[in-house]
Amino acid sequence: MSTHNIPLPPTGSTLTTKGWHQEAALRCLLNNLHPEVAEDRENLIVYGGNGQAARNHQALQDIIHALKNLENNETLMIQSGKPVAILPSHEHGPRVLIANSNLVPHWATWEHFNKLKDEGLMMYGQMTAGSWIYIGTQGILQGTYETFMAAAEKHYGEGSDLTGKLVLTAGIGGMGGAQPLAVKMANGVCLACDVEEWRIEKRLKTRYLDVLCKSFDEAIDLALKSVKEKKAISIGVVGNAADFFKYVYDKGIRPDLVTDQTSAHDPLNGYVPHKMTVAEALALRTSNPAKYVELSKLTMGEHVKAMLAFQKAGSHVFDYGNNLREGAKQVGVTNAYDFPGFVPAYIRPLFCKGSGPFRWVALSGDPEDIRVTDEAMKKLFPENKKLHNWLDKAQEMVAFQGLPARICWLNYGEREKAGLMFNQLVREGKVKAPIVIGRDHLDTGSVTSPNRETEGMMDGTDAVSDWSLLNLMINTMNGASWTSFHHGGGVGIGYSQHSGMVICADGSKDMDERLKRVLNSDPGMGVARHADAGYEIARETARKSSLKLPSLKINS
Amino acid sequence: MSTHNIPLPPTGSTLTTKGWHQEAALRCLLNNLHPEVAEDRENLIVYGGNGQAARNHQALQDIIHALKNLENNETLMIQSGKPVAILPSHEHGPRVLIANSNLVPHWATWEHFNKLKDEGLMMYGQMTAGSWIYIGTQGILQGTYETFMAAAEKHYGEGSDLTGKLVLTAGIGGMGGAQPLAVKMANGVCLACDVEEWRIEKRLKTRYLDVLCKSFDEAIDLALKSVKEKKAISIGVVGNAADFFKYVYDKGIRPDLVTDQTSAHDPLNGYVPHKMTVAEALALRTSNPAKYVELSKLTMGEHVKAMLAFQKAGSHVFDYGNNLREGAKQVGVTNAYDFPGFVPAYIRPLFCKGSGPFRWVALSGDPEDIRVTDEAMKKLFPENKKLHNWLDKAQEMVAFQGLPARICWLNYGEREKAGLMFNQLVREGKVKAPIVIGRDHLDTGSVTSPNRETEGMMDGTDAVSDWSLLNLMINTMNGASWTSFHHGGGVGIGYSQHSGMVICADGSKDMDERLKRVLNSDPGMGVARHADAGYEIARETARKSSLKLPSLKINS
Ligand SMILES: NC(=O)c1ccc[n+]([C@@H]2O[C@H](COP(=O)([O-])OP(=O)(O)OC[C@H]3O[C@@H](n4cnc5c(N)ncnc54)[C@H](O)[C@@H]3O)[C@@H](O)[C@H]2O)c1
Ligand SMILES: NC(=O)c1ccc[n+]([C@@H]2O[C@H](COP(=O)([O-])OP(=O)(O)OC[C@H]3O[C@@H](n4cnc5c(N)ncnc54)[C@H](O)[C@@H]3O)[C@@H](O)[C@H]2O)c1
Repeated sequence: MSTHNIPLPPTGSTLTTKGWHQEAALRCLLNNLHPEVAEDRENLIVYGGNGQAARNHQALQDIIHALKNLENNETLMIQSGKPVAILPSHEHGPRVLIANSNLVPHWATWEHFNKLKDEGLMMYGQMTAGSWIYIGTQGILQGTYETFMAAAEKHYGEGSDLTGKLVLTAGIGGMGGAQPLAVKMANGVCLACDVEEWRIEKRLKTRYLDVLCKSFDEAIDLALKSVKEKKAISIGVVGNAADFFKYVYDKGIRPDLVTDQTSAHDPLNGYVPHKMTVAEALALRTSNPAKYVELSKLTMGEHVKAMLAFQKAGSHVFDYGNNLREGAKQVGVTNAYDFPGFVPAYIRPLFCKGSGPFRWVALSGDPEDIRVTDEAMKKLFPENKKLHNWLDKAQEMVAFQGLPARICWLNYGEREKAGLMFNQLVREGKVKAPIVIGRDHLDTGSVTSPNRETEGMMDGTDAVSDWSLLNLMINTMNGASWTSFHHGGGVGIGYSQHSGMVICADGSKDMDERLKRVLNSDPGMGVARHADAGYEIARETARKSSLKLPSLKINS
Repeated sequence: MSTHNIPLPPTGSTLTTKGWHQEAALRCLLNNLHPEVAEDRENLIVYGGNGQAARNHQALQDIIHALKNLENNETLMIQSGKPVAILPSHEHGPRVLIANSNLVPHWATWEHFNKLKDEGLMMYGQMTAGSWIYIGTQGILQGTYETFMAAAEKHYGEGSDLTGKLVLTAGIGGMGGAQPLAVKMANGVCLACDVEEWRIEKRLKTRYLDVLCKSFDEAIDLALKSVKEKKAISIGVVGNAADFFKYVYDKGIRPDLVTDQTSAHDPLNGYVPHKMTVAEALALRTSNPAKYVELSKLTMGEHVKAMLAFQKAGSHVFDYGNNLREGAKQVGVTNAYDFPGFVPAYIRPLFCKGSGPFRWVALSGDPEDIRVTDEAMKKLFPENKKLHNWLDKAQEMVAFQGLPARICWLNYGEREKAGLMFNQLVREGKVKAPIVIGRDHLDTGSVTSPNRETEGMMDGTDAVSDWSLLNLMINTMNGASWTSFHHGGGVGIGYSQHSGMVICADGSKDMDERLKRVLNSDPGMGVARHADAGYEIARETARKSSLKLPSLKINS
């Protein structure tokens, strides 16, 4: 079947189904497959390797058909991207329930999964691909912004941003390319190198990067000048991170933050060794892969040594989820893990407050509706400087892909408020159609992923996925519009389990109740999870709220 | 803490909590730990190795306290037997949500689990231990009865039982000891050997076995005579299964059914080799374990050869979930798997009809309430001979343990009817207190366990646990009183995932609605799962009902 069988999402304020929750599911499913959103529409791939929205074209057509005919007291069951049953239910709960890519642990390998996938029996759902709430690259940009702002607040005090601060990083490819813009949005100076010039040029064109300098010195000089002037700017330069980081260090420069997003997770096809041209590296990659990997890891060793030197000299250094430390450790840098990963360093304290990537989509398709919500958010949280800054910059710098959407991180307590406010905007006709509220599976209460989001939990419960299941259950009970449970998102089959939640604010009184419950209990489970693990911030968050944690004797 | 801190379950018709769903959870939790029910009360172990009801004594007290104070718009979250949160919810859904023993697949080993357990961070929930709906040994008896009745119906036609039929088996220990009584309840003749005389005597005392014969010949003669007279009887004899089965075969006797429940899953500590006395075997077990295992497997080889010979001669032969075939195969019996396991042979066709182990408990504590429900069930299903037979025999032969309870297998459609009928009995005061309805996690729609319940699925989806999760989600949404998701029940950590459901009929109109939905969608997911895998019986079941299966274009 060819792609023109995939309709665009309906827009406007008229229903094409029997209710707004079905409609929201349909519009979001088709938005995931929107030409501006999906990485590979023909193959139903949304993002993240091969994260799909539906198992195959027939299943997609069957889902569309089912959603169009689904009554308000029925629920559609999706098993790895295929509609397997419609069951009698009731109107105050999910219209769709989704389980993707789940395998009994002993069989949870890529090998077994791919065998089933090849036979048409399964689908890889990633996180928001198979659960129908991906919104394009705004997500990574905002997540990166949030990390840098969290770093600023941690090191320079609440309410701080990166004004007058220098961030040194490397790797500005597909995801890492969000770094320069995110730092600039945080009002800092970003100095970034990448080994490939065409990558840097791509960032220039899309305005994710401001300047490409001709030499290390030119880049450094511009960076230092901008820091002095407190001017937000992003500066790129061609170079290998191992060389550039050492060069900066040797010049006596001490950036405030140092990190890296080269593709070090893949020493053969991602990371590029130094002391040779990229062309030479590409040739070696095919002629002698073993040698290539050896040199790659040796380069990582030098790269990490420079980062450790910065750390010793007072810079705040962190790993950005690319496994760079492991490569360095393997070639003898025994203290490679002396600098922390970004989750324990910056994100976990946010998770402890029940904070996470809250997102919303204007079902009308009208960008004006998002502008209205942006303004309303600013009014709702007048004190939240970080949020105001993000929303202003996002309005200016972020192009919508598919249905207009917005993302920002909100705490436990705030999400509930925002949800009720959106419902009121819909009720009062301030926006043209209902607003859909969702989140990434990467959130405070929803994901168990011992190599990333739950790495190094205080009590050692990194792999305990009871928490993700409880999150799924309470959101399903409390009346989300659709919920989901996936396996293998982010880090691959065998390594994670996580739950999704999407809820549609249709302006009704009933949705006031459901929004209040769901947007309380969803992040509430995150606070409970971190409080139980021993994090004092989470316990304090619970104490200051009405969240009851019986085994900790908090509020109960 | 000593056991007298564990209260007995409250009984009678007066609430000790703020609603009947909390009350049901409290009574069932404490019933799981009732002295007549729990295997090891002091350690909170209910059954099945170390399947626990709560993580530790402190957690148990905290759960009791939480249930006693839980409002009707709150939900208690249990993580591996500990009460971790109370969240705002609503009155038409679960009062308790439970996730036990779940680990991200890569870490899902006994080793990692036990480490966490030793640190007090997890608990093994088995199936109904941690989900608070175990009812004692009636379950295994009824499951065994159901298997033998399914065999009778398959081989001798619908409505048939084992009248005038001879069943040959071995191993009448803890679970296998249910075989003689189950065959007798099915009106057949059971001829069973066990290598240990004291085991047989134990069955005689508890009336699970009628006669212990002194010799092989005496046992065989009595069995043949009883078959001729169509007299239901169970006959035991001391002997090794490998020897006795061959002896029976060589005598030219061809039993109708042949199976086995020796502990062949454990060749060292369970199964006993032949050509030596039990005393000699016990000595060898410690002096030379390797040799013991070798002889054990060689004995399994002979044992299976005899079973294959019976099969070739026309007997219906099946494996009863003890891994006997594997042991035989390992010593060169290449065709050991020529006879099937009991699930593909007899249980799966039941699962295809949405049938499974439906159970109910009289919260009043009064046995008379169960008598009333027994009679009402017979009236509700006047045509179901198998059910009538079971209920009559159960009334006569099954002693209650803890709160009076009953179990029987009901199909898709029937469960809904039974639930509504129970709710009416409560409403009309025909019983003294609400009735709790639950089921094993071993059920048509709830379990994924590739070495047992989902072994050899037609389409190869043995390990796809999306189905168990969908079952969890729809029951949670549709308003069960509590739901649960466990890992590792039955077959151990790493090898299964399964969901539980319990719903309390309190006589209200609201519960009519919830019972109708839950008891429809719960087995409905089972029918959907088997229909999707290609089983025609399941597709036919769906077609004859109103169950909508979109991807199969059934009713939709
Ligand atoms: N939140 C997270 O944990 C998170 C988010 C996004 C990305 N990541 C990780 O960050 C890494 C980058 O992701 P991506 O999608 O941008 O990958 P990508 O392959 O698109 O980009 C990597 C970039 O690194 C450059 N590079 C490689 N070796 C280099 C070297 N030695 N010196 C300088 N530049 C070099 C490449 O030219 C390329 O532009 C990956 O390892 C990914 O897993 C983590
Ligand atoms: N539904 C199921 O799949 C299911 C249910 C229950 C039990 N089982 C399996 O059945 C087996 C028995 O379970 P149990 O709880 O009764 O175990 P158990 O250890 O209590 O009893 C096993 C009995 O077998 C006897 N035995 C051992 N070797 C023998 C031999 N060679 N010949 C004759 N008798 C011998 C022992 O004396 C003992 O009485 C186990 O392997 C168990 O996993 C499966």
